[in-house]
Amino acid sequence: MRDQPLDGKTVILRIELDTKQTLFGTAATAIESAGGDIIAIDVIQTSRDRTVRDLTVKVREAETTNKIAKAFESLPGIRLVNVSDRTFLLHLGGKITIQPKTPIQNRDDLSRVYTPEVARVCTAIHEDPSKAFTLTIKRNCVAVVSDGSAVLGLGNIGPFAAMPVMEGKAMLFKQFADVDAFPICLDTQDTEGIIAAVKAIAPGFGGINLEDISSPRCFEIEQRLREELDIPVFHDDQHGTAVVLYAALLNALKLTDRRIEDARIVICGIGAAGTACTKMLLAGGARHVIGVDREGILTRDKHYPNGMWQWYAEHTNEERLYGGLTEALQNADVFIGLSAGGILKRDYILTMAEQPIVFAMANPEPEIRPEEAEDIVAVFATGRSDYPNQINNVLCFPGIFRGALDCRASVINEEMKLAAAEAIAAVISADELSPLYIVPSVFNQRVVEEVRRRVVQAAIQSGVARRQPRE
Amino acid sequence: MRDQPLDGKTVILRIELDTKQTLFGTAATAIESAGGDIIAIDVIQTSRDRTVRDLTVKVREAETTNKIAKAFESLPGIRLVNVSDRTFLLHLGGKITIQPKTPIQNRDDLSRVYTPEVARVCTAIHEDPSKAFTLTIKRNCVAVVSDGSAVLGLGNIGPFAAMPVMEGKAMLFKQFADVDAFPICLDTQDTEGIIAAVKAIAPGFGGINLEDISSPRCFEIEQRLREELDIPVFHDDQHGTAVVLYAALLNALKLTDRRIEDARIVICGIGAAGTACTKMLLAGGARHVIGVDREGILTRDKHYPNGMWQWYAEHTNEERLYGGLTEALQNADVFIGLSAGGILKRDYILTMAEQPIVFAMANPEPEIRPEEAEDIVAVFATGRSDYPNQINNVLCFPGIFRGALDCRASVINEEMKLAAAEAIAAVISADELSPLYIVPSVFNQRVVEEVRRRVVQAAIQSGVARRQPRE
Repeated sequence: MRDQPLDGKTVILRIELDTKQTLFGTAATAIESAGGDIIAIDVIQTSRDRTVRDLTVKVREAETTNKIAKAFESLPGIRLVNVSDRTFLLHLGGKITIQPKTPIQNRDDLSRVYTPEVARVCTAIHEDPSKAFTLTIKRNCVAVVSDGSAVLGLGNIGPFAAMPVMEGKAMLFKQFADVDAFPICLDTQDTEGIIAAVKAIAPGFGGINLEDISSPRCFEIEQRLREELDIPVFHDDQHGTAVVLYAALLNALKLTDRRIEDARIVICGIGAAGTACTKMLLAGGARHVIGVDREGILTRDKHYPNGMWQWYAEHTNEERLYGGLTEALQNADVFIGLSAGGILKRDYILTMAEQPIVFAMANPEPEIRPEEAEDIVAVFATGRSDYPNQINNVLCFPGIFRGALDCRASVINEEMKLAAAEAIAAVISADELSPLYIVPSVFNQRVVEEVRRRVVQAAIQSGVARRQPRE
Repeated sequence: MRDQPLDGKTVILRIELDTKQTLFGTAATAIESAGGDIIAIDVIQTSRDRTVRDLTVKVREAETTNKIAKAFESLPGIRLVNVSDRTFLLHLGGKITIQPKTPIQNRDDLSRVYTPEVARVCTAIHEDPSKAFTLTIKRNCVAVVSDGSAVLGLGNIGPFAAMPVMEGKAMLFKQFADVDAFPICLDTQDTEGIIAAVKAIAPGFGGINLEDISSPRCFEIEQRLREELDIPVFHDDQHGTAVVLYAALLNALKLTDRRIEDARIVICGIGAAGTACTKMLLAGGARHVIGVDREGILTRDKHYPNGMWQWYAEHTNEERLYGGLTEALQNADVFIGLSAGGILKRDYILTMAEQPIVFAMANPEPEIRPEEAEDIVAVFATGRSDYPNQINNVLCFPGIFRGALDCRASVINEEMKLAAAEAIAAVISADELSPLYIVPSVFNQRVVEEVRRRVVQAAIQSGVARRQPRE
């Protein structure tokens, strides 16, 4: 991800010209000589002898922008004020805005939405706190909470730098599922501090989406908040990934004519996501799961200081296999990678069962590139958007929260997650299903509706819904 | 405020009819006999033998709705599902919404606002955290924070019931000053808990508006947050009131040809707002301020267990007056009431100096009704919208935060508050100024612009601005 050129394909150069010393043509010539192609000009400010313009310039390569900057340095009267690109421009001032649902145009409006009439609404909620779900934003509002400790592939970049991701997530919530989501980046990485802060701000929200919080703190934080709050708390990095992966696996198993109960599934990388995926697979009926991490195959014959691994060893690998990834993969039906780029070799795949399923989801570099293995696998999926079958959380979180909010669920439980996965899988019909199409596109509008429908049903059946929505 | 009829003038009745048992006409007749006038009908749901309709009904008095409900009870096949009114309908699902600034229509959009391209923006902020002010919502976003402990005239109604007020405030921020404000109601009333929660959520915000937090906790909370955060923290109940009151007083003094230095000012009700107002008056040059509360005139000859009163006694009443409100008011030029309804008598006002100024701001019932005193005072103001000269915080907070955000102020200091007050006062020209017009209307669009301009200026001059905005 960090290898992306800083300037993409189009940059915006803001230049200031001293018109007594130079002409715009001089700047234009310098840009073109350096390999830039000016495609638009906007005059920003102009006075008798000074003019500021924004030039939209196509650049051939990252280096082009530097060349232009260098050329300007030797030209008197031309100053390069700054260089932006479309991505940075889209982020100026943030990506979301808060809007009143109705305008306040006169004193009558003011008196209804604010004092004195609002007091009646406050009193109604004070007398019956459950009315907060109908008379405040709690009905449709989710907090996207992060401490910035494990952001994308960037690691612990802190709460300020994590904001653009959480704002982006808030955009997706709205765009895909009409959920009002607000980003909250916390200035603490202390487990108790995070728990206390989220509990404190919970009254205005109908759900909490935890995001990019590093392991193992994320487990305790989520578990405690689930116990101590009466609204859904969902750590998307764990469960969103697990849901979409399980959906993809359901379709891959269908394509290769396997039952999940019989499949030998190797999971490589036993962190937060790996554990959550395994729990879903077990809940979905899987009986032969083998976990592999830096220590090799996790087995109940060893003791692990890492509590998560200990739990894992006790609940998987019923055959008590020993060894590393190569041993684990012998005759395995499915490889699920949530580990690091390049660790899966073509040779290993050749030792797997016939028609192997490989989900190589390390980001940005998968455990093995599709090009290296596509001829020997039955189904291949990655976490990347530039290959077929992208396992993308965006398929899950908008719909699952839409459903949870609509039925006022108190939690998002295992039943609802399984239902969400089955919904995502079911969006692809038997006719459409193919090795290159096991998960729907994030832009497939049926996904949210289908996930919502089945999640609401599962919430009602499992007794966690507090309201029965109209269809 | 609590005396408002529950149903206002128009109510919406949702009724369910069993069409095998009864006809709509029966319901309509019952409503009209009870004194209701059906002005609109909306069919909500209908099936073979059941129909649900929303009837918009004008009612003569609060009792009418109860009469209708009672009449329905004795009619088989008619069920009153619920009764709403326009105020409640405006609150359904909350009053604000969160919107993406740009739509996400395709994978290219998605990759810019979310992964993978967002990583470049995160990295830029990680390298220079001050970029959070340009590349995230921090640039324009204020948290409206309450613990629900002192809401309007309702008292300690808690965080759920406080939400409609904070949402209303968020609407006003947007409507009047284009500030994105988000309501945060805290599920703790512990001073340290509130401080910790606000500090934790601060990274995404450019300012904190504290609201409806009871005294004396509000002082420590605000002070500690001001010291420990680098963004403005402003307790509106204290400072908003103080700013608008000071603005009104400036114009009242001008009208009666007085200098603030010479005016004898009695403040009745030394709580959070009374103290904040006094501090502003002193900062503005007042030299003769006398505070009165339940103990009578506060004087430095006594010791007060209430730390706020102790501070107050030491900084006011330089003549060491003794006694109660009547003693304080002898020859006073100004009465400022922030206490309780009806405590000021016409007789007391007659002992004041000539051309007395009376600001009776207790809500909803002022210290004295204008009708009882308007013939003997030079200028009269209240906190109510149904009399002239309403001292309304809405005149201050949108513009003062607009200014603070635009110049990226680290605090809202005394200089900025004085500047805001002077701006509000200055919106009324010398020609327009009259005893019935000393403060502008909240809908006067010049208020925000003038407050913003002077607040930015004051922030720059006092060295707390981190950016010089373009005009």
